[in-house]
Amino acid sequence: MKKTEREFLANYNIHDYDVPLTSVDIVIFTIIDEQVNVLVTKRADFPYKDEWAIPGGFIDIKKDKNIDQTAMRKLKEKTDYDAPYLEQLGATGNNKRDPRGWSVTVSYFSLVNFDNVQFGKESRWCPMSDDGICEEKLAFDHEHIIQDAFQRLRNKAQYTTIALHVLPEKFTLSELQKCYEIILGGKLNKSGFRRRITKANVIEEISGESKQTATRMAQLYRKSSDTELHFYMREIYAR
Amino acid sequence: MKKTEREFLANYNIHDYDVPLTSVDIVIFTIIDEQVNVLVTKRADFPYKDEWAIPGGFIDIKKDKNIDQTAMRKLKEKTDYDAPYLEQLGATGNNKRDPRGWSVTVSYFSLVNFDNVQFGKESRWCPMSDDGICEEKLAFDHEHIIQDAFQRLRNKAQYTTIALHVLPEKFTLSELQKCYEIILGGKLNKSGFRRRITKANVIEEISGESKQTATRMAQLYRKSSDTELHFYMREIYAR
Repeated sequence: MKKTEREFLANYNIHDYDVPLTSVDIVIFTIIDEQVNVLVTKRADFPYKDEWAIPGGFIDIKKDKNIDQTAMRKLKEKTDYDAPYLEQLGATGNNKRDPRGWSVTVSYFSLVNFDNVQFGKESRWCPMSDDGICEEKLAFDHEHIIQDAFQRLRNKAQYTTIALHVLPEKFTLSELQKCYEIILGGKLNKSGFRRRITKANVIEEISGESKQTATRMAQLYRKSSDTELHFYMREIYAR
Repeated sequence: MKKTEREFLANYNIHDYDVPLTSVDIVIFTIIDEQVNVLVTKRADFPYKDEWAIPGGFIDIKKDKNIDQTAMRKLKEKTDYDAPYLEQLGATGNNKRDPRGWSVTVSYFSLVNFDNVQFGKESRWCPMSDDGICEEKLAFDHEHIIQDAFQRLRNKAQYTTIALHVLPEKFTLSELQKCYEIILGGKLNKSGFRRRITKANVIEEISGESKQTATRMAQLYRKSSDTELHFYMREIYAR
């Protein structure tokens, strides 16, 4: 009798096959003391027990409807943080990255204001060098994943308003420019930067609110209520 | 006795857990008769037996060292085509896309000259509409994967020399411009286009070789020997 799709599916069992491990990993960046930091958590279990790693873990095929939900759930479990957005970075998979066996991980990244992230003593912010190297030695290939994420963040900061995510609710234009400079690793032209940000229409003056800086009172701004990621027509650096 | 990492690994068995399926899928684009086409293959097995799909399949944890190799191997098996390059598009994973169960797929895409791809009767080029819809109904969520890949191709054509990959060995500047116009779905300014391509330094005149067109003899060009993907400073469309 010819086999039907229904019969095939009824007899299909993934445990009849040698399959890879599949997980998610999440790179959360912030800026602290004029330096990019990345969120790391201490691993509770083997492998790499008690070592630092970026938050992540396995897909739970009962709990998770899709892989973005896995990333949100794992981040929440390990840091008690509800990410407002996570962007997928891509997948890495090979026979070396995990001592348990052939492993695929789908990585995500986000940029946040550090006041918005609450976590216990098993997590902390780890400072990074200018070229995306984390101060702490990390489990698995997490250094590489962070470097890739940092490169993506830097590229995106060139042509989008992504850096707005790192700011507190109220900020000055100088503070915004400083964030871009820290992420991009270089100075920006002040008038050119202000022209682009203003044209992008993603921030608005807070009427009557300003902040004392070293030299003067500076106007305070906030994100416009409908601010989504804005793409610039040209890169911020005129290369 | 305290358990060690070695003991943990010796006892680790992926089949003790409910894990997702993990596969790769590959979107290969070309241009035929002034239309973008995508490579599809007829599925030999369940699910979706005898229906069209993009080439792909499962990671073989014995054969494949990494996931890029899985993509190359699957493409070769299903189309006898050795892709010169495949770029990763990203991962999709959810509990609906595959009737066998929770499934993650990592998708790749490439742009090729169609003369370079040989395949048997189980594969063919399928024309696509201007907005990236494939003419044929496809298995799984492959229509969505193709649409994402087409969007990425279109974005990349804006700021890179990716469209060079679709041309034969020798081509005229008009043919190159035409490829960009087909991918981007609109007309380009001739002198602006030529200025950018020339400045990018990725093609060279073939000394003494030209081609008869409807109105005149046109100079023939080839890719420069060291042509890698070139990034433009600005997008090709002045938006």
